[in-house]
Amino acid sequence: MKTAILTVGTEILFGQVVNTNAAYLSKSLQNLGYDVMYHYTVGDNPGRLKELLDFAYHDCDLIITTGGLGPTQDDLTKEIISEYFGEKLVEYPDQLKILTDHFKNSRYKWTENNRKQAWFPENNCTVLANPHGTAPGFMISKNGKNIIAMPGPPREMTEMFETHVKPILESKRDSVIYYKIIRTINLGESSMETILLPLIDGQTDPTIATYAKEGECSLRVTSKRPTYEEAKAACDEMIGKVNDLIGEYIYSYEDEDLLDVVGRILKEKNITISCAESCTGGGFAKALTDVPGISQVFERGLVTYNWKAKEEELGVSRETLEKYTAESEEVAFEMVTGLKEKTGSDLCIAITGVAGPEDMSPDKPAGMAYIGISYKDDTRVVRVWRGNRGRFWNRNFFVLRMLNEVYQSIK
Amino acid sequence: MKTAILTVGTEILFGQVVNTNAAYLSKSLQNLGYDVMYHYTVGDNPGRLKELLDFAYHDCDLIITTGGLGPTQDDLTKEIISEYFGEKLVEYPDQLKILTDHFKNSRYKWTENNRKQAWFPENNCTVLANPHGTAPGFMISKNGKNIIAMPGPPREMTEMFETHVKPILESKRDSVIYYKIIRTINLGESSMETILLPLIDGQTDPTIATYAKEGECSLRVTSKRPTYEEAKAACDEMIGKVNDLIGEYIYSYEDEDLLDVVGRILKEKNITISCAESCTGGGFAKALTDVPGISQVFERGLVTYNWKAKEEELGVSRETLEKYTAESEEVAFEMVTGLKEKTGSDLCIAITGVAGPEDMSPDKPAGMAYIGISYKDDTRVVRVWRGNRGRFWNRNFFVLRMLNEVYQSIK
Repeated sequence: MKTAILTVGTEILFGQVVNTNAAYLSKSLQNLGYDVMYHYTVGDNPGRLKELLDFAYHDCDLIITTGGLGPTQDDLTKEIISEYFGEKLVEYPDQLKILTDHFKNSRYKWTENNRKQAWFPENNCTVLANPHGTAPGFMISKNGKNIIAMPGPPREMTEMFETHVKPILESKRDSVIYYKIIRTINLGESSMETILLPLIDGQTDPTIATYAKEGECSLRVTSKRPTYEEAKAACDEMIGKVNDLIGEYIYSYEDEDLLDVVGRILKEKNITISCAESCTGGGFAKALTDVPGISQVFERGLVTYNWKAKEEELGVSRETLEKYTAESEEVAFEMVTGLKEKTGSDLCIAITGVAGPEDMSPDKPAGMAYIGISYKDDTRVVRVWRGNRGRFWNRNFFVLRMLNEVYQSIK
Repeated sequence: MKTAILTVGTEILFGQVVNTNAAYLSKSLQNLGYDVMYHYTVGDNPGRLKELLDFAYHDCDLIITTGGLGPTQDDLTKEIISEYFGEKLVEYPDQLKILTDHFKNSRYKWTENNRKQAWFPENNCTVLANPHGTAPGFMISKNGKNIIAMPGPPREMTEMFETHVKPILESKRDSVIYYKIIRTINLGESSMETILLPLIDGQTDPTIATYAKEGECSLRVTSKRPTYEEAKAACDEMIGKVNDLIGEYIYSYEDEDLLDVVGRILKEKNITISCAESCTGGGFAKALTDVPGISQVFERGLVTYNWKAKEEELGVSRETLEKYTAESEEVAFEMVTGLKEKTGSDLCIAITGVAGPEDMSPDKPAGMAYIGISYKDDTRVVRVWRGNRGRFWNRNFFVLRMLNEVYQSIK
């Protein structure tokens, strides 16, 4: 079904808020097999809103709106839609009860303007409950035109979509989309495309698409078939072929982040870990401790930013620092061996390098770092560099490369 | 001037990419005094693109497009616009030279389809240079209709907008918008509104708007006047009045983040700092080291995640840990005093608490932490809690409260 997404909200037109609702709905609709033809955003203006509805219906059968359902005078979406469909707004007693009960149980005082949130089109209307707010959504279907109106706050909208709208859309669609996102590391997008060319070329279903993201590369395998079973079987078969060609680079078949995969393996295998960071300044420890339950294996992090800290905390020798500078292979090695000695953690990782924005010297450019890693009987140092793209990017890149080193050791 | 923003790109309609371009342009246009009436997004489809142009011009004078200017067959924006304005596309020799020179200096091979990026409408057209990519932008003005077309990649688009488009728009506008964003901490949005009500009520220019963001609150003072000087004077006068009422809560008059203000003061006053973190897992050190040049004052960070680390690194006593648990005022105090003893940094800060997602116990809920801070002769511990909103939010909240404690000590 051809679909348009219509966002109502001045805050979007002012650029105060990025329209994440449209992206969320697009992705969800796409996955349900609906074709999204347009996004529109308009302010709280009756004339423009009506014109846009008219314009959208000239080649779409379904319009999904977000925003403009609240209690204030500015909130006009419901009024405009009802008028457009030639429906009268009437008070729904059951909705009024839900609303007044809500106010009884909250610290907010009832004001009479809230009442309009219990008014809905008299006919052809299904009300969609909103457990997180006072403005319910609704759906109208009439003369082959369908509209689903939801509130603007993302938390309210997504809950309503998942609980009420998705089942409606699933029952109305004529085909099923199934897809898997496969995540890889250490393989560039163009290399991936070259290897997979025999599968990509001339393939209509399932389709294969590659995506490059900061420092890694993903693959999406998608099939659109009459039934779920057919679509899944087609994807699974294709994934088998993909696996034969690039299996060694794949770290997730379930669209997991590398961080989550690393955290999961560390916990599953009960591998204790400590880290010592210079240029990432705690970024690796911070990332790792984003994983719930990581306290089971994460033991200690040291942010040894200056020479004194490297000497006192990790036993890096002053001689090495003076001879090679802090941003060197030799210091990375002493950092990780010192950390191992101090903590005794199963896996120790250390990093020193140049976060930027400026280069330190021609052979120590911003964006370059040495990662020392010690696991079981193996201790090694690797140099990483993929250009200087600013302090923020460089530091994220370093953390990703550290995760990759951990992953390669424990996978 | 009434303006519409038109995004061309299937990846937006698929929900693979959030439309940050539209938000960026909206904000910039708003600040330049332009009224943004609509956002539209459409795929690479000639018919729909033409219809949308027609629809947009029925009440806008300016359309700004992004996307669809590249070398492939899908990239049709330029062709459609030229046709719409009745202009023939011709090859611009100077643009072809820039393009071929670009390929000579890059590792990419010239393919003939690139040539179309040097074709532009024959008349009424201004080409806009793109230093970050191969597709230039352009502007057409004809019969009172204006269009500015820019490439889709945000890095290329923003550079082009700032360098070439902004000066054009500044020369065409009929009024100037001047605004300041004032940042506060330790003041809730509703309290702020109540205090400022005498200034907000009935005010038409300058206007005052409050915004609540995660854990803090901002204020925007805006004036729209015929000249820059008038608008600035009106804002400055209003900011003086705001300052009289809530000056003690203001930490920036220049829309700086608290992190940047803290980093700046630490560097200016040359106050050395170390931190010891449990529940934030390196998040505070990571945030602080986001500030370029912070190595001048940031000495050491310790992520003491388990008991052993707290004992060995900071000298927290086993007795205290057993009696009060790690997530206690007493342990926070011993952490910060131990850190002070170890590092001798001017300012030491430590945190221990419950990141979540689950509560530890009824009196140790997720989202609660103790922050110990030691500066000059003063050592204190504060308890912070503002509900449990998930591990990610809680940890960001902790880091913000740590920054606030540092700020209150050194401001």
